[in-house]
Amino acid sequence: MVVRYTNKIANTKGFGSFTRLLAKWKGSVYKLVWRDVLVYLLLYYLFSFIYRFALDDVQKRVFEKVSLHCSHFRTLIPISFVLGFYVSLIVSRWWGMYLSMPWPDTASILLSTHFHGTDARSRMMRCTVIRYLNLGILMTFCMIAPGVKAIYPGLEHFVEAGYLTESEKETLDRLERKSSQHKTYLPFLWACKVVERGRREGKVKDEISQKSLTDEILRLRGCCGELLGWDDYNIPLVYTQVVTIAVYSFFLFSVLGEQFLDPAQNYPNNLIDLYVPIFSLLQFVFYIGWLKVAESLINPFGEDEHDFEFTALIGRHLEMSYMLGDCGEAGFPTMVSEAYW
Amino acid sequence: MVVRYTNKIANTKGFGSFTRLLAKWKGSVYKLVWRDVLVYLLLYYLFSFIYRFALDDVQKRVFEKVSLHCSHFRTLIPISFVLGFYVSLIVSRWWGMYLSMPWPDTASILLSTHFHGTDARSRMMRCTVIRYLNLGILMTFCMIAPGVKAIYPGLEHFVEAGYLTESEKETLDRLERKSSQHKTYLPFLWACKVVERGRREGKVKDEISQKSLTDEILRLRGCCGELLGWDDYNIPLVYTQVVTIAVYSFFLFSVLGEQFLDPAQNYPNNLIDLYVPIFSLLQFVFYIGWLKVAESLINPFGEDEHDFEFTALIGRHLEMSYMLGDCGEAGFPTMVSEAYW
Amino acid sequence: MVVRYTNKIANTKGFGSFTRLLAKWKGSVYKLVWRDVLVYLLLYYLFSFIYRFALDDVQKRVFEKVSLHCSHFRTLIPISFVLGFYVSLIVSRWWGMYLSMPWPDTASILLSTHFHGTDARSRMMRCTVIRYLNLGILMTFCMIAPGVKAIYPGLEHFVEAGYLTESEKETLDRLERKSSQHKTYLPFLWACKVVERGRREGKVKDEISQKSLTDEILRLRGCCGELLGWDDYNIPLVYTQVVTIAVYSFFLFSVLGEQFLDPAQNYPNNLIDLYVPIFSLLQFVFYIGWLKVAESLINPFGEDEHDFEFTALIGRHLEMSYMLGDCGEAGFPTMVSEAYW
Amino acid sequence: MVVRYTNKIANTKGFGSFTRLLAKWKGSVYKLVWRDVLVYLLLYYLFSFIYRFALDDVQKRVFEKVSLHCSHFRTLIPISFVLGFYVSLIVSRWWGMYLSMPWPDTASILLSTHFHGTDARSRMMRCTVIRYLNLGILMTFCMIAPGVKAIYPGLEHFVEAGYLTESEKETLDRLERKSSQHKTYLPFLWACKVVERGRREGKVKDEISQKSLTDEILRLRGCCGELLGWDDYNIPLVYTQVVTIAVYSFFLFSVLGEQFLDPAQNYPNNLIDLYVPIFSLLQFVFYIGWLKVAESLINPFGEDEHDFEFTALIGRHLEMSYMLGDCGEAGFPTMVSEAYW
Amino acid sequence: MVVRYTNKIANTKGFGSFTRLLAKWKGSVYKLVWRDVLVYLLLYYLFSFIYRFALDDVQKRVFEKVSLHCSHFRTLIPISFVLGFYVSLIVSRWWGMYLSMPWPDTASILLSTHFHGTDARSRMMRCTVIRYLNLGILMTFCMIAPGVKAIYPGLEHFVEAGYLTESEKETLDRLERKSSQHKTYLPFLWACKVVERGRREGKVKDEISQKSLTDEILRLRGCCGELLGWDDYNIPLVYTQVVTIAVYSFFLFSVLGEQFLDPAQNYPNNLIDLYVPIFSLLQFVFYIGWLKVAESLINPFGEDEHDFEFTALIGRHLEMSYMLGDCGEAGFPTMVSEAYW
Repeated sequence: MVVRYTNKIANTKGFGSFTRLLAKWKGSVYKLVWRDVLVYLLLYYLFSFIYRFALDDVQKRVFEKVSLHCSHFRTLIPISFVLGFYVSLIVSRWWGMYLSMPWPDTASILLSTHFHGTDARSRMMRCTVIRYLNLGILMTFCMIAPGVKAIYPGLEHFVEAGYLTESEKETLDRLERKSSQHKTYLPFLWACKVVERGRREGKVKDEISQKSLTDEILRLRGCCGELLGWDDYNIPLVYTQVVTIAVYSFFLFSVLGEQFLDPAQNYPNNLIDLYVPIFSLLQFVFYIGWLKVAESLINPFGEDEHDFEFTALIGRHLEMSYMLGDCGEAGFPTMVSEAYW
Repeated sequence: MVVRYTNKIANTKGFGSFTRLLAKWKGSVYKLVWRDVLVYLLLYYLFSFIYRFALDDVQKRVFEKVSLHCSHFRTLIPISFVLGFYVSLIVSRWWGMYLSMPWPDTASILLSTHFHGTDARSRMMRCTVIRYLNLGILMTFCMIAPGVKAIYPGLEHFVEAGYLTESEKETLDRLERKSSQHKTYLPFLWACKVVERGRREGKVKDEISQKSLTDEILRLRGCCGELLGWDDYNIPLVYTQVVTIAVYSFFLFSVLGEQFLDPAQNYPNNLIDLYVPIFSLLQFVFYIGWLKVAESLINPFGEDEHDFEFTALIGRHLEMSYMLGDCGEAGFPTMVSEAYW
Repeated sequence: MVVRYTNKIANTKGFGSFTRLLAKWKGSVYKLVWRDVLVYLLLYYLFSFIYRFALDDVQKRVFEKVSLHCSHFRTLIPISFVLGFYVSLIVSRWWGMYLSMPWPDTASILLSTHFHGTDARSRMMRCTVIRYLNLGILMTFCMIAPGVKAIYPGLEHFVEAGYLTESEKETLDRLERKSSQHKTYLPFLWACKVVERGRREGKVKDEISQKSLTDEILRLRGCCGELLGWDDYNIPLVYTQVVTIAVYSFFLFSVLGEQFLDPAQNYPNNLIDLYVPIFSLLQFVFYIGWLKVAESLINPFGEDEHDFEFTALIGRHLEMSYMLGDCGEAGFPTMVSEAYW
Repeated sequence: MVVRYTNKIANTKGFGSFTRLLAKWKGSVYKLVWRDVLVYLLLYYLFSFIYRFALDDVQKRVFEKVSLHCSHFRTLIPISFVLGFYVSLIVSRWWGMYLSMPWPDTASILLSTHFHGTDARSRMMRCTVIRYLNLGILMTFCMIAPGVKAIYPGLEHFVEAGYLTESEKETLDRLERKSSQHKTYLPFLWACKVVERGRREGKVKDEISQKSLTDEILRLRGCCGELLGWDDYNIPLVYTQVVTIAVYSFFLFSVLGEQFLDPAQNYPNNLIDLYVPIFSLLQFVFYIGWLKVAESLINPFGEDEHDFEFTALIGRHLEMSYMLGDCGEAGFPTMVSEAYW
Repeated sequence: MVVRYTNKIANTKGFGSFTRLLAKWKGSVYKLVWRDVLVYLLLYYLFSFIYRFALDDVQKRVFEKVSLHCSHFRTLIPISFVLGFYVSLIVSRWWGMYLSMPWPDTASILLSTHFHGTDARSRMMRCTVIRYLNLGILMTFCMIAPGVKAIYPGLEHFVEAGYLTESEKETLDRLERKSSQHKTYLPFLWACKVVERGRREGKVKDEISQKSLTDEILRLRGCCGELLGWDDYNIPLVYTQVVTIAVYSFFLFSVLGEQFLDPAQNYPNNLIDLYVPIFSLLQFVFYIGWLKVAESLINPFGEDEHDFEFTALIGRHLEMSYMLGDCGEAGFPTMVSEAYW
């Protein structure tokens, strides 16, 4: 589910509207990083206690040198920079995925406009096209979203839900035996065929209307193909691994390097012992939080708080497309004359 | 309201035209940050007074160590970098939203060109299409802009304003009972249907003209759908929180870290006591100002000084579309011959 | 006027072709920054003389501390980074504006191809369409470019220049009384209507040709609408102010911070007194020059050296569109057979 | 083969899903960098052993100075920044290449919809169009992907595989003698011609359907042209060389500069001798890994783990296009009426 | 000529494929920077010899202070950052130019498909259209590419090369007297007119086919217009000058600042005298090489190793368009039936 928050900050008032967002828990950075923070603190205090209580003076001096070494050299890994580029890439791909989402609304309006007839057969044909479009979208979602796949694991579940008739299932099964390719595009083909039959039967008045309908159906198929493409060709594993290794190793050595050393030893930048590594912690929340942005967007096909709501969308598409595509004459108001404003 | 200023700097003259912009108040950075600056200064001088007058010498030495600690370690949070990427993202999304705004002008010109007839019924049908387009746009604005929603909280207000007839309202109410989906796209469907009826009645001469009209109506619906999409799928809350936490915690510790310490103590970079933390203040104005750019653009659907002027646009769309779409033969000049230039 | 220079560096020869560009004055960075440099140097040497001759030793020590303070803390403002992002944004918007420029060439070719007839009325109708397109573009330019507005401040000047007939002016005046909206799109509507009349009179042979013509006319109107949009929705004033404040305050304190301090005092990085602050100056030219890139591109609708040449374009469009759109049969060569190459 | 992994991280659970990716070997950063790491370590320990055991004290002091010199000055090369921009560029080009990939699915559906007839000749013509499309795509792949070229080195191999008939091969051979240009676009021309013949024979019902088919065929040809363009106009060699030189020379001097020097000499940041240069190694893995991202994406036409799977795609395209384009009436379910949901 | 190299690195094997690219000379960074490196070294050793042999001890101390001053302050100019943004901009514009290149291939296929007839007149008309398209492209290239202009300096050279007939040249000359605008778009207009005539003569069967042809011809004209636009509206001279000044002044002062100073003086980071300024040199090669990337891409219309091969493209377009557009029935294979795979 996507966490909406911008409506809360439509107007900038008083002290920066962003500050009001800090108190949100749902979909927040706190919810995403508290486990990591806990582990970080545990490790930190483990070493802190060892240093303070378990080591003798000679060992302390060694520990201090190791700590200073870590503190100085972990900056060799410029995670700020690489995270900036990586997150930018992920965010732009995430939005690309959103733009590839198929919406059957335009097709439904076109159907309502260009596929004439109020008799039973006309309505059946219109409804069948709508059903096929929803079926195609659903089959696509099943291929990419584990959450949808869990609800509709097989063709028989489509039949149960009314997306597929028995005879259509047989057709799909028959083709399954002939070809191992996925069958996701067949409903779109069927929809085109029904439109074509409508044209031959005179329900679609002219070839221009047919073209409008067919083009829109194929555009939906194109969207589905794009979604499959986003799923197949993710950014290379190497990139994700490099970034993850960089960030986590950076903080692994921060556990050592950010220890408060004995102020009496007069090490540079170790003037005082505050016990709580507040800046390391802030830095940790900041970078890990930034990485979590990437983590929650890299595959928006799951069921995270920032993922696309596929399960809700399926229902929405079905209802909306029937409302727009087959509301019958009852759905249209009569025109009345009106004066010029 | 958008604050226009570029017309002031169309020509670069003398000392950089940008300097002339610094004196503007409306929509300026000063107006956005003065509250934050005030709080910052209050906190700063609170600590400053404590340090200077309330603490004894031993406590002063501790305070100085804490201050130096803050001064050194707050640079661990690279807000400059993350703000750069974040603001870039926000600005590009803001422009994407602008590009999704629906303008009924082209549809009106097409209507004027392709929907023939000067009799009452023809004019009524043309005006109805224009009304439906404006209605659809208005319903979309109601869903995303709180300012517009406040003016038109319910269907009855559309009726009052003349956007909706009673019979149309009944149709919408009837559908409301059947489906919980939003009804924003129905006016566009109705518009397509009126065009279709015009085609059957011979007012729209051929199917090519009908396609031009229908395509443009559906493009407008697409724009409305995009606007809803921008509103639903904002950038993840995590990202905004991470940036906000980073910037504000950076300056929280700047209050401590940027104190002028006793020059007599000879701390590095504390040679002199200027009383006014001019550079911290500049840095504060700079970074908070940069963050405010993001704040004012992240949701341009409100009523801030940088938000889209939805209320004004509604009136503009209505007037413009009637002017272009139904100015009658009186709106067209007679052609006269003219010589080659 | 845009300063062309890339033709000078089409081929990379010898020592980097860019070095050859350094000697250009017109449209150069020198021309844009010399005033700022002068003021900077005046201020610099004012303080320098005060330091060297007006202050006694104690005051000198204070001055030195202030200078060192400025030198160290002005780096808190990361102008390099923010300028990079800001200039990137401005450049991409500038190019977006260029891409929105309307060119009537394609419409003229289409007119020549699809609007048949060599009789007087046909030619008159063709010329009228061309005139309307040029008028629409001109009216748009008047709204955004002060330079064009100065030449054509009112409708009567369009009439004088032959863009508008008296009867058309009356039509516009009549509409002006009915609606306060701008009338820029009306010529495009008129052009569509003339094409429609041509279709009815059989001069435009079929509805496909009419669609080609109408689509292109509306595309031009779309370009004009985009130009108005770029002009209305500029990047927020906040952003421009933040960047300007950052850059100028950075250099205000550089005047103090980059003074050559007495080498005898042994301050770090103050080993030698060169009298001329060559590096500060270079830095100044560099950053102010970078800011000037933004300044000259943020509103390319003026008459700067990097602005679009609207006045020249108006004449070009008129001449080009008449040449392409109405050259008559005399403009077409007779076909002769030729052998396969 | 592309290594899929995002399905593993669809849901963010527990400790950041990215950590789960670190254990993957296939397509991982470890697999790509282990050779480089080995060489790096060999060189490192070679110098380390020389320093520790082969040099006398005077030589050691010289070595230490050289090492400190390297350590300080190698930071002059800002590889972090240039790698960020370079990898961004490569990634965006890689995705551009993916978007240029031709998919014959839409063309097949259009063929199935608009190319009527169940007789032998109709089916033959449909199948011929499909075959031509697959042939055109295959010929394009042969020009850019060495792996495909290896399987189909000449026209006779197309004939063997059934993509080309003997008579078609003769036609190509005949044209080969007349023109040295590549013949990749001819199959698309042939496909257009077959559609044109189908139109004349009445199998394609109207010119709108023909246009749909022809447009889609030409779009596929456009994709093929784009792929050839990506292959011909890669980013300049200079850029790649500059980046490579920067990264490798950076690490060449890191071998010297990151040696642990004798702590007894009290050099800054050389407090302790850890024997294993853990931070240099991490930095090495990080930067070289980042460079490998670019390396594996710059030409995705090979057979690496991140390259497009051309060989698999050929088979997929053939099977999918026949399934969609010629499944016969058997492939379509009969419509049954259904109730409104 | 574009230097192809990615085919060499299609597969990543062994030690990073990029290392294999380092040995290339053609189009390499070495070839572009060796002159600059030479000058840099000459200057460097000039100062080095002066310092070592010409100066007495007092002068040496002054030189050392100047050197240290340069060494410290030249970092004020952040060339790394500005180069990153600048090169990004140049590369994206370079690719935009590539995407604007006109390719007559699609038009030729459309001509072959939709312009019927095997008689002499039909072939002549087809060939004339092809000739006009190539002429229009050639005239565009002449306006932007000095190399092409050198081959075809005037209209008479087009006639000689067979691109233009005498009567067409007369038409152009006649128009030249009437209008000073460039005549580059006229051949496209003529091509549209020939298609229009073909439609009237029944060689183009219907208006849809005519529209396909006309649209494609106008798309080519649009590409030519875009190329002229890229050439006219380059990025502002200011930007290029700012970057060039920054880079070259950075290295001018590097000559002084990177001198090896007498180690005996114990200046920081001057522990050892290596005689060869290896890191400065690397830095020089790196930055100047990066700048050269921009230099060779800013105007790809020349004859550099990274420029578009206009001269070769002209021949390629001519041959390819005749092959695709007029290969006659001999160019089409006869269809044979084939079994389902």
